[in-house]
Amino acid sequence: MTRPPFPAPLRGIIPPLATPLKGRDELDVAGLERLIEHVLAGGVHGLFLLGTTGEGPSLSNRLRRELIDRACRQVAGRVPVLVGVTDTSFTESVRLTAHAAEAGANAVVLAPPFYFSASQAELADYVEHIAPELALPVLLYHIPSHAKLGFDPETVARLIHSPNVVGLKDSGGKMIYLHELRLAVAARPDFTLLVGPEELMAEAVLLGAHGGICGGANMVPRLYVDLYAAASAGDLHRVRELHDRVMRISVAIYNVGGAGSSYMRGLKCALACLGLCDDTLAEPLQRFGPVERERIRVGLCEVGLLDPST
Amino acid sequence: MTRPPFPAPLRGIIPPLATPLKGRDELDVAGLERLIEHVLAGGVHGLFLLGTTGEGPSLSNRLRRELIDRACRQVAGRVPVLVGVTDTSFTESVRLTAHAAEAGANAVVLAPPFYFSASQAELADYVEHIAPELALPVLLYHIPSHAKLGFDPETVARLIHSPNVVGLKDSGGKMIYLHELRLAVAARPDFTLLVGPEELMAEAVLLGAHGGICGGANMVPRLYVDLYAAASAGDLHRVRELHDRVMRISVAIYNVGGAGSSYMRGLKCALACLGLCDDTLAEPLQRFGPVERERIRVGLCEVGLLDPST
Amino acid sequence: MTRPPFPAPLRGIIPPLATPLKGRDELDVAGLERLIEHVLAGGVHGLFLLGTTGEGPSLSNRLRRELIDRACRQVAGRVPVLVGVTDTSFTESVRLTAHAAEAGANAVVLAPPFYFSASQAELADYVEHIAPELALPVLLYHIPSHAKLGFDPETVARLIHSPNVVGLKDSGGKMIYLHELRLAVAARPDFTLLVGPEELMAEAVLLGAHGGICGGANMVPRLYVDLYAAASAGDLHRVRELHDRVMRISVAIYNVGGAGSSYMRGLKCALACLGLCDDTLAEPLQRFGPVERERIRVGLCEVGLLDPST
Amino acid sequence: MTRPPFPAPLRGIIPPLATPLKGRDELDVAGLERLIEHVLAGGVHGLFLLGTTGEGPSLSNRLRRELIDRACRQVAGRVPVLVGVTDTSFTESVRLTAHAAEAGANAVVLAPPFYFSASQAELADYVEHIAPELALPVLLYHIPSHAKLGFDPETVARLIHSPNVVGLKDSGGKMIYLHELRLAVAARPDFTLLVGPEELMAEAVLLGAHGGICGGANMVPRLYVDLYAAASAGDLHRVRELHDRVMRISVAIYNVGGAGSSYMRGLKCALACLGLCDDTLAEPLQRFGPVERERIRVGLCEVGLLDPST
Repeated sequence: MTRPPFPAPLRGIIPPLATPLKGRDELDVAGLERLIEHVLAGGVHGLFLLGTTGEGPSLSNRLRRELIDRACRQVAGRVPVLVGVTDTSFTESVRLTAHAAEAGANAVVLAPPFYFSASQAELADYVEHIAPELALPVLLYHIPSHAKLGFDPETVARLIHSPNVVGLKDSGGKMIYLHELRLAVAARPDFTLLVGPEELMAEAVLLGAHGGICGGANMVPRLYVDLYAAASAGDLHRVRELHDRVMRISVAIYNVGGAGSSYMRGLKCALACLGLCDDTLAEPLQRFGPVERERIRVGLCEVGLLDPST
Repeated sequence: MTRPPFPAPLRGIIPPLATPLKGRDELDVAGLERLIEHVLAGGVHGLFLLGTTGEGPSLSNRLRRELIDRACRQVAGRVPVLVGVTDTSFTESVRLTAHAAEAGANAVVLAPPFYFSASQAELADYVEHIAPELALPVLLYHIPSHAKLGFDPETVARLIHSPNVVGLKDSGGKMIYLHELRLAVAARPDFTLLVGPEELMAEAVLLGAHGGICGGANMVPRLYVDLYAAASAGDLHRVRELHDRVMRISVAIYNVGGAGSSYMRGLKCALACLGLCDDTLAEPLQRFGPVERERIRVGLCEVGLLDPST
Repeated sequence: MTRPPFPAPLRGIIPPLATPLKGRDELDVAGLERLIEHVLAGGVHGLFLLGTTGEGPSLSNRLRRELIDRACRQVAGRVPVLVGVTDTSFTESVRLTAHAAEAGANAVVLAPPFYFSASQAELADYVEHIAPELALPVLLYHIPSHAKLGFDPETVARLIHSPNVVGLKDSGGKMIYLHELRLAVAARPDFTLLVGPEELMAEAVLLGAHGGICGGANMVPRLYVDLYAAASAGDLHRVRELHDRVMRISVAIYNVGGAGSSYMRGLKCALACLGLCDDTLAEPLQRFGPVERERIRVGLCEVGLLDPST
Repeated sequence: MTRPPFPAPLRGIIPPLATPLKGRDELDVAGLERLIEHVLAGGVHGLFLLGTTGEGPSLSNRLRRELIDRACRQVAGRVPVLVGVTDTSFTESVRLTAHAAEAGANAVVLAPPFYFSASQAELADYVEHIAPELALPVLLYHIPSHAKLGFDPETVARLIHSPNVVGLKDSGGKMIYLHELRLAVAARPDFTLLVGPEELMAEAVLLGAHGGICGGANMVPRLYVDLYAAASAGDLHRVRELHDRVMRISVAIYNVGGAGSSYMRGLKCALACLGLCDDTLAEPLQRFGPVERERIRVGLCEVGLLDPST
């Protein structure tokens, strides 16, 4: 297993891979292979395993390792592989990173430990302590909705001087933060800035970010790859057209059921409707019942991802 | 190792044991033994390992198991031992509970999985799925400040019918919730209701709760045991006098430094000043520097826990 | 109109009077007189006009003045009258206070200006600037749920030195705050501390607060007066019995419909069911429809406030 | 005073005019005239009085009316004038709108009543009740940070059928909301969509919004007008260059002092440094002291708005 050097910056569409499951603590191996080949065929520029979309925190340590091993083997160096190693325990993050490095992954993505409410100073110290212990380059993961604590721009401005810290994924949903961040890291043009919510990828790239971690790319990778290309090229007409499709998918697929988990449940239900993998979710989340599933199926037809006659 | 039956309800003061550490991923074994004997000598009615005060989520799986083993051996059945097994992964909570059962613990304490925002229905299903898999009785852990999601009274009213669910620890800090809860579980007088913030233990017991998980009992167990006894006996005069001491400790020891982690850092610093154990904290939290440590020392003198001449 | 001196501290049950309305910007004059006589007959120790329960901020300046005039005339010095004068504009609060003073009110209640997010320092300065301009003694109104900003204990410790600041109403719902506050104002035993949520009045008085602003006292004043008396006398058995009734009313009447406005809509609906006044609410709130109204009626029967045969 | 018809949609840069004050409840009349001429000379497409930046809610009713009268007279129909009429009282909003209509204003901007937490259904009813009573076209004001309640996209989709509702100002700071809104109002291309935070104006216009309510246009109107023009024309190179200047102003001027009020205090301090008007703020906010004022002066020099030699 050869590991390509981590691009600086990493550009393009990196899907946060959904984790296909057959049951509690059981990977859907065939679904995983199918899903990986599906997104690679769509032209994506990397893969992000065990993120929020990948339900990383809900999976057992054993299953996380199995997933890393199988996915890295399947990708086989065709694109960079990023692995979410966020944990509430420093030691467990270090161990999982070591495993990912051995399996051939290219970088890790690290959110703040998400149980205790640390201060920004404690958070910066934490990253400065852990980064040298990690066997792979680190992208910071700004996702205050789930981790409670986020990385303030001033904190990132300090952390870009940590040798192993190579980028940041912004899943905060507030574009002012991303714009402030771009100023804060202006001294390091090789510092990767990726945006999380796919609905914001177009404008982020138009104004200078390097790409997106787009969950919808699990379903229809080509759309996000094309939108990224249009935004990179400054083709505004095409950006508006494709961004409109992205928004229609977002409204149709991610807004069914209660607010907290509708994105996760909708996405995995859609992947099942598209025949890519099972819709089993790791607890505490649960697959949709027949009523919501039908709404997702109808939504997929409306946005042109599914043939109504099937 | 014999395991006494779990009392129904469990009454009294159950300290959430601080986890003495010598360094990263290294238990302070001597400190642990000293601390356990200190709180038992103070007359406490149980021990709660690996809670928030015990920094459970910040510790490696290995260290959690070592702590359970050593603590259960040290307690040796003198009081019931409760173990925090909250995890974002269903499977890991089940495994840790199995380990705790083998070590001789008496019950586990389970907060909602704290990464994803599940709905109340998903949370209730989660508990109903996991409770039968757990090898020990379960107390629900209501701590929305850390777990984001809490247990609504209606959810608890449903969960009291789960055979393995025996109680709830309320660390929410809102007494109206606890009063609503008492109505919601009125049909099960054996259902244990314990209150988390020590500042609220007196009024909770005066109005019908069974006891408290008081962090300050790590420092001065007798005070909380006495306050519990006074509240149980309805001795209002003594309750006011002792509650006033509890509040003075709270203000002097838990309010130094930034808001998010001041309780944890202050408590562990005080334990070190009192000679009970080291003040090493698991990352991302950090021990106080000399300035804050001096403030804690002065605070301990003011509230009469430390002799100023030492 | 003679104005009795403001008691220091003010003790007992002070209902936050609901504002009876016949329509938009139209007072239900007969309902107002009936409601005032109803609560006075129940033995309450004061009246609080234009608070949250009184929908003060939703009423026009004209109607607020009419209400103050009529209520002060009706009370005629039998108990102290407190008036909510919270406004986002300094000048309007000063003007309304002047009007209240002329009408014979005894004190005003002032929450932070609730549009902008000021700092604690700005808030303290604000109170120190406005208190000398106000023609009546001031109780601070801690209600962060509605005013966003609350009064930190350190801020209150500073403000007790303002000559015109005589007390605080705590509607925050967090008893730790109230306990910290009692320590912070210990130097001024004449400083009135009243608790807002009626569900917390018993424990507040048991531990040293002076009384409660209980919305339910609009319906059944005697219950809250009796509970206050039992708590003051330290009669724990009676406290538990009456507090249980208070909680049953709370669950039955204030939890119908959506969370945000269920208290206001439920209370005014109950007042209508009890024949005290109309259930018209000032916009943006709206009276219950027939389904919810029937639930309130049934709830009133269950808690013994309404005869099922009527 | 002739009133031009309200454009549908209204396009361009509409500064939320700061309200120049000389003291408590006293308008800085000369400053107001100077500021209005300054922004009109910069080519702005409208004026928005009494918004958040205009400190509307902090001003007395009398001063609000005086400001409307003077500003409308000064503008004299050169651009449309919008007036913030948000109030917690339905009746006061109606009255202020009547005054604005008589003074010659062109539209009003209305946030939800911001004291009580109404539901979306109550909010929609509120707007449907008040819109027909208002003498001017209404733009909804989405600003949950200050009004607590915002307008959900579904609510807006319902309200576009109210005859008098002509647009929405989005000050929420979340671009996904704005994108969802564009879908929700797609059936009404004449429905004005303006974005509040100036840092987001460029991307909003690139993707289809009609313009921005940019506070910084009080200082340097031409910059925002140019950026709007570049975004409208799809000149990405120029957009990036000007947006970079906007971000540098934002970081230098709006981030001094505590978070809650740093924007308001920084902006008004900058206006004073630029000689446009006094930096008096309406309480509870307060002007900066000399230290922060010097930081603002230095910031203005760094971003090229002030000559360092002056």
